[in-house]
Amino acid sequence: MRIVHIHECTVPISRYSDKELDRGTLTTSAAAIRTDVVREGRRLVGYGFSSFGRYGQSGLMRERFIPRLLKARPEDLLNDEGDNFDPSRIRTCMMSGEKPGGHGERSVAVGTIDMAVWDMVAKVAEKPLYRLLADKYSDGKIDEHVPAYVAGGYYYPDNDVAQLQHEIRRALDLGYTQVKIKIGSATLKQDMRRIEAVLELVGSGENLSVDANNQFDLQTALRYGAAIKPFGLRWYEDACDPLDYTVQAAIAKSYEKPLATGEGQFSLQDARNLILYGGLRPEIDYLLFDCVHSYGLVEYLRIISMLEEHRWSRRRCYPHGGHLFSLHMTLGLRLGGTESHVGTFQPFGGFADDTVVEHGYVKPPETPGIGFETKQALWDLLQSLGKD
Amino acid sequence: MRIVHIHECTVPISRYSDKELDRGTLTTSAAAIRTDVVREGRRLVGYGFSSFGRYGQSGLMRERFIPRLLKARPEDLLNDEGDNFDPSRIRTCMMSGEKPGGHGERSVAVGTIDMAVWDMVAKVAEKPLYRLLADKYSDGKIDEHVPAYVAGGYYYPDNDVAQLQHEIRRALDLGYTQVKIKIGSATLKQDMRRIEAVLELVGSGENLSVDANNQFDLQTALRYGAAIKPFGLRWYEDACDPLDYTVQAAIAKSYEKPLATGEGQFSLQDARNLILYGGLRPEIDYLLFDCVHSYGLVEYLRIISMLEEHRWSRRRCYPHGGHLFSLHMTLGLRLGGTESHVGTFQPFGGFADDTVVEHGYVKPPETPGIGFETKQALWDLLQSLGKD
Repeated sequence: MRIVHIHECTVPISRYSDKELDRGTLTTSAAAIRTDVVREGRRLVGYGFSSFGRYGQSGLMRERFIPRLLKARPEDLLNDEGDNFDPSRIRTCMMSGEKPGGHGERSVAVGTIDMAVWDMVAKVAEKPLYRLLADKYSDGKIDEHVPAYVAGGYYYPDNDVAQLQHEIRRALDLGYTQVKIKIGSATLKQDMRRIEAVLELVGSGENLSVDANNQFDLQTALRYGAAIKPFGLRWYEDACDPLDYTVQAAIAKSYEKPLATGEGQFSLQDARNLILYGGLRPEIDYLLFDCVHSYGLVEYLRIISMLEEHRWSRRRCYPHGGHLFSLHMTLGLRLGGTESHVGTFQPFGGFADDTVVEHGYVKPPETPGIGFETKQALWDLLQSLGKD
Repeated sequence: MRIVHIHECTVPISRYSDKELDRGTLTTSAAAIRTDVVREGRRLVGYGFSSFGRYGQSGLMRERFIPRLLKARPEDLLNDEGDNFDPSRIRTCMMSGEKPGGHGERSVAVGTIDMAVWDMVAKVAEKPLYRLLADKYSDGKIDEHVPAYVAGGYYYPDNDVAQLQHEIRRALDLGYTQVKIKIGSATLKQDMRRIEAVLELVGSGENLSVDANNQFDLQTALRYGAAIKPFGLRWYEDACDPLDYTVQAAIAKSYEKPLATGEGQFSLQDARNLILYGGLRPEIDYLLFDCVHSYGLVEYLRIISMLEEHRWSRRRCYPHGGHLFSLHMTLGLRLGGTESHVGTFQPFGGFADDTVVEHGYVKPPETPGIGFETKQALWDLLQSLGKD
């Protein structure tokens, strides 16, 4: 049982579902690990991609991480029984020769391959990934389904408020009840109009979160905090620089409602520093680490252990990246809930094409692995990578 | 005045001067910025490289940072007078579209190009870089020369102690008085033998530092600290994970002699966290930030400002990377001293071929720019990059 080859390509993605709008320069990487395992007459291939919001990592994968895996002795990448690949050993192999510190970019490259590894491992085990995770890490216990909120609410260059409402209506029509929109790239007054326009549709502050994309200094963060406090929003996300723990703690001291952050922490050590120094409150705040951006699920499992040592419930975790992998993780590890991308970051965002959303709850597909086969546009793209 | 093209290549480097010894997989990137400025009948080219200890960054430079600079309007990369390039504006252009957090890899890619930018800017100004820096950032004041210590002391696969002593003798013969060796990859007993063998040659603990390469947990760090304390070493470097501020602070509480760290901090924000949470002592400890690994000199200048706000003297800074760029920075910004690589990490390590070392003090060359022309083997390599 061995890895035969790893293919990867860079794909442009857009935060807007409207293809006419400026795509910007965002990219992600897609990766395919081709094995010598044969299932139903075909070589088994594991697929992954780089989540959203950072860049594709073609260079680092080609220069360091793919060559290390292809050079390794095949048996060093397998579990003790030799009947499946071992994500933790594969991670160790990828990180050989890497030094502590400097968690960025390489953490995305490793996390991209890690996603493909878990797809491959679950396919070898002939289980949907959430079931494999539940069996290994949650004593087999599984919730019935997963709460999901729709992330988006970017600024539109024209008719911003009307288009924003149109976007939110579409999410509600699909069966979602909770949404998240951006703040901080307009005046506070304009942002308040956007918030009020969305609240008209979702009904309660509990159904709306806002995300400042790490743009605010302390003063601006507090000003926004004071303005939005009366709405009782679900959470106020990424107010300040993700590594500025002093400012983060000062915000937590002043804003009594729930905060959310973590997508700018790219390693166990960064996550621990956030918990130690960021002043967050385990009873009300949310942790949004992006598993794929931070070395993948092997590291994410260590982050969960660290959180539990610090008396944080894993239910406070809503992994960043509204895609199939996050959905499986959330169900299989019994996390709090997941993000969902509807129309945004296509063809990677969101879940299976036939996903049923019931009052804001979703389930992952039952196909072995992550179930990319259930998302046709993504499946077409991925298949062009791993072909014989 | 504009940038015409940026060339880069990946170069394998070795921590040993003996070419027979295992080179490992270390690499660095060399970069050349070709301009339309003509000096003495030739196009002016600025050169840089990625320092030592992390990897070359070909992929990230090609995917993101070089294209952004080549796409920019030439006037956006110049100073107000339009008579030279502006390192800070070039840095802003390279970082457009980049998000806060995730400081690793990209910080090396940006820092590599930044070094070439400063070489280019000093050449346009027809000054050696240290003079340009002193005029801009030190009111023109310049020390006579710079204290330098020789870094190396890696483990030899055979006859370790004898070869280590040979290496140290060569450094002393060149005129250096202070050296730094590795610890932590052998037993404490073996490491004590290595330390004692070097102390025999350099005379006093003041002339020897030890570097644990971020390998120790708290218990091991304290055990080593207790064992080396009686020697009164110059400093005890990188005992623990560079981002584990809790352990760093516990070590500082227990080890009363000087500590040194910082080469694992790759941004202003990471450096600030070290100062805020790492428990370091401004009177006795040393800060070894690698300018090239942490977004370059534009960021390093911000780090110095941050340090001075926190009442740290810039004299506590010994920039990591024993090369010409660090030497210019140290003299021009009036830092504490510099590392020197003698025979290691060639052809990039160390200073001009005709450098005179007087009782452990050195000076940079007087040629415009960084003076790569004074280091023949490096100059040959760089020239093959930037050719017309």
